[in-house]
Amino acid sequence: MLLAGLPGTTTSAQALEDLQQPETPLVLKAQGSFFVGGEQVEQTHVELGSFGPAGHISVGQMYVRYMIPYEGRVPVVMIHGMALTGKSWETTPDGRMGWDEYFARKGHPVYVPDQVGRGRSGFNQAVFNNVRAGITPPGEQPALPRFSDEVVWPNFRFGSRPGVPYAGTRFPVEAVDELSKQGVPDLNATLPTPNPTIRALSDLAARLNGAVLMGHSQSGSFPLEAALLDPDAVRGLVLLEPGRCPATYTDEQITTLATIPILIVFGDYRDTPTGIARFGDEHFWQISFESCQAFIGRIQASGGRADMLDPTTDSRLRGNSHMIMQDKNNLEIADLILEWIDEHVGEEGTHE
Amino acid sequence: MLLAGLPGTTTSAQALEDLQQPETPLVLKAQGSFFVGGEQVEQTHVELGSFGPAGHISVGQMYVRYMIPYEGRVPVVMIHGMALTGKSWETTPDGRMGWDEYFARKGHPVYVPDQVGRGRSGFNQAVFNNVRAGITPPGEQPALPRFSDEVVWPNFRFGSRPGVPYAGTRFPVEAVDELSKQGVPDLNATLPTPNPTIRALSDLAARLNGAVLMGHSQSGSFPLEAALLDPDAVRGLVLLEPGRCPATYTDEQITTLATIPILIVFGDYRDTPTGIARFGDEHFWQISFESCQAFIGRIQASGGRADMLDPTTDSRLRGNSHMIMQDKNNLEIADLILEWIDEHVGEEGTHE
Repeated sequence: MLLAGLPGTTTSAQALEDLQQPETPLVLKAQGSFFVGGEQVEQTHVELGSFGPAGHISVGQMYVRYMIPYEGRVPVVMIHGMALTGKSWETTPDGRMGWDEYFARKGHPVYVPDQVGRGRSGFNQAVFNNVRAGITPPGEQPALPRFSDEVVWPNFRFGSRPGVPYAGTRFPVEAVDELSKQGVPDLNATLPTPNPTIRALSDLAARLNGAVLMGHSQSGSFPLEAALLDPDAVRGLVLLEPGRCPATYTDEQITTLATIPILIVFGDYRDTPTGIARFGDEHFWQISFESCQAFIGRIQASGGRADMLDPTTDSRLRGNSHMIMQDKNNLEIADLILEWIDEHVGEEGTHE
Repeated sequence: MLLAGLPGTTTSAQALEDLQQPETPLVLKAQGSFFVGGEQVEQTHVELGSFGPAGHISVGQMYVRYMIPYEGRVPVVMIHGMALTGKSWETTPDGRMGWDEYFARKGHPVYVPDQVGRGRSGFNQAVFNNVRAGITPPGEQPALPRFSDEVVWPNFRFGSRPGVPYAGTRFPVEAVDELSKQGVPDLNATLPTPNPTIRALSDLAARLNGAVLMGHSQSGSFPLEAALLDPDAVRGLVLLEPGRCPATYTDEQITTLATIPILIVFGDYRDTPTGIARFGDEHFWQISFESCQAFIGRIQASGGRADMLDPTTDSRLRGNSHMIMQDKNNLEIADLILEWIDEHVGEEGTHE
């Protein structure tokens, strides 16, 4: 069975041998990382894990890694989904090139954040330490959800049952154990409302003097929210399999969003129960798809540009999963998105 | 005061404007990321954050990001310290080039992990969710320590008091708020013993067909531990300000380590109280330094090569802090380490 060894089995670092090297050099003007946002808060000795006296720490900052090629096309910000990190966009589970490098090779400065509260963005540990010390009741400690390897099969739509792939799946199911390692506890329940990642994305786009914001799944609607905060900073919106397209936006909000080109991308096998009770609906992703069709309708009715890319509009997405950026045809799908950006956002970037 | 705005003040993304771009292109044969190690464990519905039915997840894996230049010098693995992530080695708080890129530009394949349990390596959330649900007593939940911004000044030795830098400090104290954003809760107390990062480092070196392992602070002794697991895989050991050099190794272990060139690096201002009660000793870092002098003595007595690089042996380290890789002279210090690697480890790599 592809899914798993026995519980407790040590899985090897096979991914290292599987890494593919591109045929041509990657030439970068710059690469590195920085933080956007964050605030300093004062915490007690206990909140700091009983390590050192009371003092301040930073919370709410967003880590961003970037690669800047010499061509000056529009920057693209790629923000990951639930219980994952920016790793989503890097080397695929089976060792092929990720979208981060591919978009950079196509001339776009690429910015890959970790959502606030996850990965290298860190999180606010105070409540956990207070619960440990008996100061805060355990029930007030946020839940830290995580996808099991079993639930990923129907929910990410590799197959309707764990270990049994759809005949036409484009996900590299032989490397699904490597995807499992990308999983991290989701700490969004520890964050204030609104989620600081949205403001950080908006600020990042503004500081880049314009960017395409690309979200995925949980973060699928983040680009829309960020655009509403600062529409002038956002030059394009790409929503990959958003959990839902918002149905509650006012006409004024739709009018604002209609000034920005929008592309929504969905994969195949949407008529599948997710196996997650909390998601409720039997056909969660089909309902997401339909919510986005309705959203596109509102944008278009408001005179805006909004396009749907999915297997019913382009057969090249046949067999694609929820993890489109990791599927075996990930670079072909990237080309479709790059063409859309060229045509509707424009080739020139403004990043200096 | 450089340290902080008022609690709750939103700090801006000034780091983005401060980012410096190098004068010459970065040309890479390959870059990307992968995981080393990890095991699949079964968890209950509650342990998974009450999200989906019981199932398996991966824990104990180590995320690694890499850059491979065309020159085939020996690979260098850079492992970060307590309450930090691999970000330590990337762009400095004031926007200068990090050691990850600099070593790659000097011809070394560079591998930057996040310690198991932190950053993009994720952590095992089960105990936290069980405490929340009332299944596990709060006191059994591990503490999550974090350095406060105030404690960093004496402990990382920027100045003896918060906001008051040493006259000769080489740390970019004007950007200390950006260092604050690098802080994450330390999850090592959630890990089994021995810390899985050590085995992952050893496995990584073996799979690279030999590597230099470079540790820092909390992970300062990890390279030694990894080398003891597989001495043939480790071609050199660089220990930056290890919390302590081990005093309990047997003569047999010392004989094993004496087959590998070892460099230990310390900064300045070691006669400083750390301000952290748990660290106990008034002059924690001076005691660390002396423990490493004793360790070097044992290696040398066993016929091995072990060198100390510090302000008393080389005046170029005058004013250096605990965060040597981020100090203003970080690339000069890198050159000293690169020269040592060339001379004592050799120029040729074996990575394919």
